[in-house]
Amino acid sequence: MAVGGNRLRVAILGASGYTGAELVRLLLRHPMVEIVAMSADRQAGKRISQSFPHLPDDGLPGLVKIEEIDWSGVDFVFCCLPHGLTQETIAGLPVHLRIVDLSADFRLHDIAVYAQWYGHEHLAPDLQREAVYGLTEINRERIKSARLVANPGCYPTAAQLPLIPLLEKSLIGADDIIIDAKSGVTGAGRDAKQASLYSEVTEGIHAYGIASHRHAPEIEQGLSKAAGKGVVVNFTAHLMPMSRGILSSIYVKCANGAGAGDLRKALNDRYAGEYFVKILPEGAAPATRHVRGSNFCLISVFDDRVTGRAILFSAEDNLVKGASGQAIQNMNVMMGWLEQMALEQLPMFP
Amino acid sequence: MAVGGNRLRVAILGASGYTGAELVRLLLRHPMVEIVAMSADRQAGKRISQSFPHLPDDGLPGLVKIEEIDWSGVDFVFCCLPHGLTQETIAGLPVHLRIVDLSADFRLHDIAVYAQWYGHEHLAPDLQREAVYGLTEINRERIKSARLVANPGCYPTAAQLPLIPLLEKSLIGADDIIIDAKSGVTGAGRDAKQASLYSEVTEGIHAYGIASHRHAPEIEQGLSKAAGKGVVVNFTAHLMPMSRGILSSIYVKCANGAGAGDLRKALNDRYAGEYFVKILPEGAAPATRHVRGSNFCLISVFDDRVTGRAILFSAEDNLVKGASGQAIQNMNVMMGWLEQMALEQLPMFP
Amino acid sequence: MAVGGNRLRVAILGASGYTGAELVRLLLRHPMVEIVAMSADRQAGKRISQSFPHLPDDGLPGLVKIEEIDWSGVDFVFCCLPHGLTQETIAGLPVHLRIVDLSADFRLHDIAVYAQWYGHEHLAPDLQREAVYGLTEINRERIKSARLVANPGCYPTAAQLPLIPLLEKSLIGADDIIIDAKSGVTGAGRDAKQASLYSEVTEGIHAYGIASHRHAPEIEQGLSKAAGKGVVVNFTAHLMPMSRGILSSIYVKCANGAGAGDLRKALNDRYAGEYFVKILPEGAAPATRHVRGSNFCLISVFDDRVTGRAILFSAEDNLVKGASGQAIQNMNVMMGWLEQMALEQLPMFP
Amino acid sequence: MAVGGNRLRVAILGASGYTGAELVRLLLRHPMVEIVAMSADRQAGKRISQSFPHLPDDGLPGLVKIEEIDWSGVDFVFCCLPHGLTQETIAGLPVHLRIVDLSADFRLHDIAVYAQWYGHEHLAPDLQREAVYGLTEINRERIKSARLVANPGCYPTAAQLPLIPLLEKSLIGADDIIIDAKSGVTGAGRDAKQASLYSEVTEGIHAYGIASHRHAPEIEQGLSKAAGKGVVVNFTAHLMPMSRGILSSIYVKCANGAGAGDLRKALNDRYAGEYFVKILPEGAAPATRHVRGSNFCLISVFDDRVTGRAILFSAEDNLVKGASGQAIQNMNVMMGWLEQMALEQLPMFP
Repeated sequence: MAVGGNRLRVAILGASGYTGAELVRLLLRHPMVEIVAMSADRQAGKRISQSFPHLPDDGLPGLVKIEEIDWSGVDFVFCCLPHGLTQETIAGLPVHLRIVDLSADFRLHDIAVYAQWYGHEHLAPDLQREAVYGLTEINRERIKSARLVANPGCYPTAAQLPLIPLLEKSLIGADDIIIDAKSGVTGAGRDAKQASLYSEVTEGIHAYGIASHRHAPEIEQGLSKAAGKGVVVNFTAHLMPMSRGILSSIYVKCANGAGAGDLRKALNDRYAGEYFVKILPEGAAPATRHVRGSNFCLISVFDDRVTGRAILFSAEDNLVKGASGQAIQNMNVMMGWLEQMALEQLPMFP
Repeated sequence: MAVGGNRLRVAILGASGYTGAELVRLLLRHPMVEIVAMSADRQAGKRISQSFPHLPDDGLPGLVKIEEIDWSGVDFVFCCLPHGLTQETIAGLPVHLRIVDLSADFRLHDIAVYAQWYGHEHLAPDLQREAVYGLTEINRERIKSARLVANPGCYPTAAQLPLIPLLEKSLIGADDIIIDAKSGVTGAGRDAKQASLYSEVTEGIHAYGIASHRHAPEIEQGLSKAAGKGVVVNFTAHLMPMSRGILSSIYVKCANGAGAGDLRKALNDRYAGEYFVKILPEGAAPATRHVRGSNFCLISVFDDRVTGRAILFSAEDNLVKGASGQAIQNMNVMMGWLEQMALEQLPMFP
Repeated sequence: MAVGGNRLRVAILGASGYTGAELVRLLLRHPMVEIVAMSADRQAGKRISQSFPHLPDDGLPGLVKIEEIDWSGVDFVFCCLPHGLTQETIAGLPVHLRIVDLSADFRLHDIAVYAQWYGHEHLAPDLQREAVYGLTEINRERIKSARLVANPGCYPTAAQLPLIPLLEKSLIGADDIIIDAKSGVTGAGRDAKQASLYSEVTEGIHAYGIASHRHAPEIEQGLSKAAGKGVVVNFTAHLMPMSRGILSSIYVKCANGAGAGDLRKALNDRYAGEYFVKILPEGAAPATRHVRGSNFCLISVFDDRVTGRAILFSAEDNLVKGASGQAIQNMNVMMGWLEQMALEQLPMFP
Repeated sequence: MAVGGNRLRVAILGASGYTGAELVRLLLRHPMVEIVAMSADRQAGKRISQSFPHLPDDGLPGLVKIEEIDWSGVDFVFCCLPHGLTQETIAGLPVHLRIVDLSADFRLHDIAVYAQWYGHEHLAPDLQREAVYGLTEINRERIKSARLVANPGCYPTAAQLPLIPLLEKSLIGADDIIIDAKSGVTGAGRDAKQASLYSEVTEGIHAYGIASHRHAPEIEQGLSKAAGKGVVVNFTAHLMPMSRGILSSIYVKCANGAGAGDLRKALNDRYAGEYFVKILPEGAAPATRHVRGSNFCLISVFDDRVTGRAILFSAEDNLVKGASGQAIQNMNVMMGWLEQMALEQLPMFP
């Protein structure tokens, strides 16, 4: 067991949002973990079941304010707070804590880029330097010893997993990558917004954040590193009438004479042995409904009709591999545990 | 009035599908039209309300087999039959009839291309030569005098309306057009198929017909004509958990130094005075839910973050502007009537 | 025409909600009406299309605050304001205005009952005495000459239309009426509430306001009048994962030896000649999707397996017959116009 | 372990339907079970992932015809075949097999009632006598030693769990029970039917099988036994635009001076210690979305406004507690295992 024969004592900050609830859903079945604290400032004093009746109260602490948490009884923190507040909060935590942060606050290595996209100076540049980017399959070695892991965004996970291996091997052009991304509504969080109302979302679709979505620099950071040069992508997000799921349709130009078969082989090679990333066989396209509730990311490759072009698809559950699931996967890596612990549930369909 | 002071006598072949029902919904409120015959082979002998309880029986004939129709009492035909059967049926109709065909059977001018994509020789090549492609805003003059109009496909309507004016003016490159198209489920028709079941579609998305969708050659035919050279596009269709609506997200390279503003201006110029095609102002992106039930097509243009690239969006109701609405619009043009007759209903939201 | 050969000049107060938008959608196609003012306090200064992109700006005034409206240029008011505020606002309007109020503020004749259910004294008891309850098919004669019509609630419309004729004829027991009502989410309005978020509503159902829903006393008021004695009903509301539509499943005990056939006959007799209320033939059950967007109310009757019991179903679009459509129907009655004017659109399915 | 230290060898007959897939999803995570055979006549020769891409092929046999199964290697059978075929198939199985049958074929003790509702004589009356009705919490003792368990229907589970304890204690009247039941679409199975198409189901509701649903006699059988006399219920099923979930709204008359508090206490007493049946506290109403994917059944009780009446609600996932989950629960009971094995996943929300 983790700490002196006992379970790892975990705190969840910001437990009243969808990613917080998803952490609870999964961690309650983790054999090595005990949830010892959950914060939710506006809900402090209540039980989690009052916010999320699908969750039990048995085996869970009540909701408290962050400042009420006794950190001496906590080993590990999942931080699901809004951006900005996150930097301040994590900067104030005792150093014995290991942390997976699900916000965007520590994902961008370059604090100038952060300031440009988020409209204010970074409040904890030292922590930013320390933070390890938590795209597990790509960055596993560094995650193992990290104290602070910046869990990737939902769109960036779905975009980078298929593209990084191809850029690393120069199988696709770096200058001509178009990512048409489609996400379920939970990506917008649980705050009451008119734009997220049932009647505003059901039975219709639209694009948003066009040419200005904050996940673009995160994607470009990862792809640039893989390509060994600056990559600027076209990334366009669309809101889908569904709760969970992201599908990325990615249009690329092949390089060096490669075709879909070569791309598929490179992905298969790169992800051989990975539990959560699955490369589909030729002709199969992934559906988000086939990963719902699970930590899987499905990827497929097709030759386009236009010679020299290929189409990649990736599908994930934005709340699991795109957020809380990958966060737990990262905790498992940090603790040296079996990576799929608490993440072995199969997708739920229909 | 149309024929000697009387209403135009209209027959609908294949009235038991979604496009047939949508024709009935709209034509019942058309002041110049009387529906005098409706065929539906498997439902012959029944009333339309048994198939579609939202439609009335008052003012409508019963469903019959095609061969039971007395063509001497019919002036105009909407044909909603499956492909292949359509060619044979229309070839056998009396020549006094004017026809809008909603199938794919007469859309491709080149019967060799037809044979390649549909797997059999064209059965009525003479009719094919006579048929006029019914993309109303682009082809209005020829439609006026046409006897047989090939109503465009749903995806091709949404793809061609934004692209044709830009290719005609050489404002975008012809070699690098990527169309990521997203459609509601009614596009698959009303036949009982497992893949269209509620539980197979709700709360999830996927791509289909990748690099092999039959609407690709129809799109390319129109774009090639506009560009004055052969155009091959990347066209990728996605199934959305919604009944109605198509959104096309189109990624292009600007040409000749043009930017989104130039593209928007060209579209505004081209569609000035059009009732159904609306170019949105800078910064606005269309949603399919804002055209639901209407014949509108909304188009918008954005500069991409990648220099020299732009993003176009078009939204339509696949059953209206993408099928039955445009068919009625074409009839109105053929008859010399006000084009928006029976099509003036505002979109229904929510 | 209404006023000196001109169109009736209509103001809509509270135009930024769903019922306001639905009024605009329908009234823009009303041949005798001109919308001359629209209020929306928080959106004042904007165009309606900024709130509702499916609506045009052409032919519509901008959004203003109520106090900015010049009442000398207005003939008729639709009031879509929240309860409480409604009473104050209408009390302050010039007396030349005729008004249909869509709130609950003037529906309950007994202001003591109002105070009990709404938690405060009625602010305009004189207006309450003047107000006519606008269940059109039941109260048409009094509506004709009314100055202030209290438009019925969505649930009460669906509950009273089937039950009133049966209670008037003593065909069912008055003491044992169970109304299991199921509504789409638009019934909760457009305000941003967590409980109305897409992800909180889709793919699930629940009951709410159990034994305490404010529509219960409105239903009982109408049923009591019909029965000639006090009626207390079981009324239970359920939230459905759909935008529009109410289905009431009503369980009754037959009286005086009646069966479903007798009930159906009584309903057919009562609603013979009505345009909007349709009694379905034996064996047919209504679906909300078959009235979507229309002002129809479908009713059917079944014998229960339990001897002496029957089941009634009624289906309506809560935003049309349950709100804005019936409001326009009432205006048409008040003005002596054809009742279905602007309400002739057929339901939209799928 | 089950059989000589090895895992229990399980066959699933009819694995290509939704209940079959749900069994696979859950059993793959059962520590004591190995799935050794799966039949699907029309899919024989394929892998399960071709029918259900959310399921893995690893650790699962291919799909075969029933007659290809070597029964000597099988210990336990889950039968998900259509009614009628089920009786013949089970009658032909070797007697060493223990069986949970998910069809309706062995649920009705009285084969005359079966013949009346299913339109043909029962084909295996001896097996019918042997079969034990598998409503686990009610019938656990008999299930332990059963060879053939008739797994309850989805609606009957949701109806009987709240009602049986109340009838046993004579806390409610037996003559006046109204069950308004609302189900997701998976209850109709995976066969391609027009009525189950996405566009026929989404955004609308309706009742079906009114006064003639085959689950009525099953419910009455259980309630009659509990009441000690014949009970006839009003049971009305409604189709909801959602994949999973059943909500029963049950309207009852209290007896012997009881109120909602007494009913709640009786249910709490009856289900004290049960893992899967939860009685909600006063004022809480269950939502189907809070049991999605889990084997829980939530029950709540409210006083009605009508004196002497109460309202019960029960919510379950029709594919889990209403089918495959309860089937596994029954297997666990039959094998003497911990009842919640493989059923401990928390509900998935949103």
